[in-house]
Amino acid sequence: MAKKSGKKRKAPEPVLRDVLRVPEGERIDLAGYDARAIPAGPADKAAGLAATAALGPRLAALQERLYAASTAGDRRRLLLVLQGMDTSGKGGTVKHVIGLFNPSGCRIHAFKAPTQEERNHPFLWRIMRALPQPGEIGIFDRSHYEDVLVARVRELVPRRLLGRRYGQINRFEKTLADDGVTVVKVFLHLSYEEQRARLLERLDNPDKHWKFNPGDIEERALWPAYQHAYELALERCSTDEAPWYLVPADRKWYRNWAISKLLLEHLEALDPKYPPGDFDVEACRARLLAS
Amino acid sequence: MAKKSGKKRKAPEPVLRDVLRVPEGERIDLAGYDARAIPAGPADKAAGLAATAALGPRLAALQERLYAASTAGDRRRLLLVLQGMDTSGKGGTVKHVIGLFNPSGCRIHAFKAPTQEERNHPFLWRIMRALPQPGEIGIFDRSHYEDVLVARVRELVPRRLLGRRYGQINRFEKTLADDGVTVVKVFLHLSYEEQRARLLERLDNPDKHWKFNPGDIEERALWPAYQHAYELALERCSTDEAPWYLVPADRKWYRNWAISKLLLEHLEALDPKYPPGDFDVEACRARLLAS
Repeated sequence: MAKKSGKKRKAPEPVLRDVLRVPEGERIDLAGYDARAIPAGPADKAAGLAATAALGPRLAALQERLYAASTAGDRRRLLLVLQGMDTSGKGGTVKHVIGLFNPSGCRIHAFKAPTQEERNHPFLWRIMRALPQPGEIGIFDRSHYEDVLVARVRELVPRRLLGRRYGQINRFEKTLADDGVTVVKVFLHLSYEEQRARLLERLDNPDKHWKFNPGDIEERALWPAYQHAYELALERCSTDEAPWYLVPADRKWYRNWAISKLLLEHLEALDPKYPPGDFDVEACRARLLAS
Repeated sequence: MAKKSGKKRKAPEPVLRDVLRVPEGERIDLAGYDARAIPAGPADKAAGLAATAALGPRLAALQERLYAASTAGDRRRLLLVLQGMDTSGKGGTVKHVIGLFNPSGCRIHAFKAPTQEERNHPFLWRIMRALPQPGEIGIFDRSHYEDVLVARVRELVPRRLLGRRYGQINRFEKTLADDGVTVVKVFLHLSYEEQRARLLERLDNPDKHWKFNPGDIEERALWPAYQHAYELALERCSTDEAPWYLVPADRKWYRNWAISKLLLEHLEALDPKYPPGDFDVEACRARLLAS
């Protein structure tokens, strides 16, 4: 209906979900992905920071709608799963991206080495206990994927049991999806060189020594084994119900923008609505005015 | 040592803790406190918003130090307790003040009417389970004080048991302080008129109907009883270990500024330090450079 004009039409914004999504069932070679790339991203750092800041109010508004809907029985919620090598920016993502949301609606859990009690249960037990409730945004800093990552590299369980876990994870995530959980799994793809630079940066600054652990150097020595373990997890567990997204993470500004954008796209797809009140507005107003 | 100059010296900034602190053991008459007052605050809304924004980076920096210190065994943490009538701004405080911190170091708990399991335990049981861990900032949106507020007004427990709870609370909070918890208890002091205006605002905006409950009008009818219950809680439980702060809450910008400033003063008093590394920096650097 719009009048045709001589102006060039603006190209439609690419859907980042489609750009970063790990295809289901295909072989993945992480060496083929450039960790400094900025697929479908803003042109440079300044533009990236501005774009991320601009997403903040939109994310917070959608979060409020999601929470509001839950008060009327909508069970939907979102779970962001963050995985990646040391220094890949899991903590930085929580600070800079999750910091854009209202903290009262966020349920954040950082998974450490399992406690004795956690080891006495199936590996998904502690995961279940940390899930977001309806209306919430859950954030896992590490997750059940550690049970096929460090568990594989360090041979913490017999290979036969390890092999079964991929299917167990897929069935678990399908159950979550059936219950209204939108699972957004992000692999922060860092290069070997950038990890070295970031670890050195921590050494250079005494205020960052608390973040450094000499054990990080031993883990780094196992880089190829970890990359292989990630490839298997991405190949086997990128499902329709819970796809993996591969986010190049060498540039922090791109990482923050990309994850913010992924969350926005998922929340927009949910399109949560403010529920109507189930009370008599006029009667309530009259009572209030008389009080 | 500084040279004397003709210039007037700037008056020292007042310590807000001293200004807002509820004196121990004195009778409180809430009617004597103006809920629209802005004690020791910025001159107006614009100045207040700017001042609060400026506190953000300082709060986040202190929070990081507090967390860093905990990784080296420092058990200290902070607990912000928010109490106040409906619409007094407990949720708004979490959004606007706690939103200034890194969400990964905040442990937020909103206490609702107790579940059957919670009622089967002593009233402090569910409180214990929601406490912050070392290095964290805990936030209680409502708290154990509900057990001497709604419990008193609605006569949920025999008066004899209720009377004992003040002492139980004081002993509990002293135990927290002994364990390194800085307890900051804030009473959001709202006027009866402002509550009416805020409830009407919710009615006027369909997007806010989900926040409205006709039961809020019944609670409002009990205003004098609640004010009296608050007076008793403030009088009996403002201790050296865990003082109450009375924050006038009719102006949202003042409320946000005042609570931010109170948190800043407490964190500055804690003065947490980045812990030194307990590893050989040069050896680690050499190993990293060789990797």
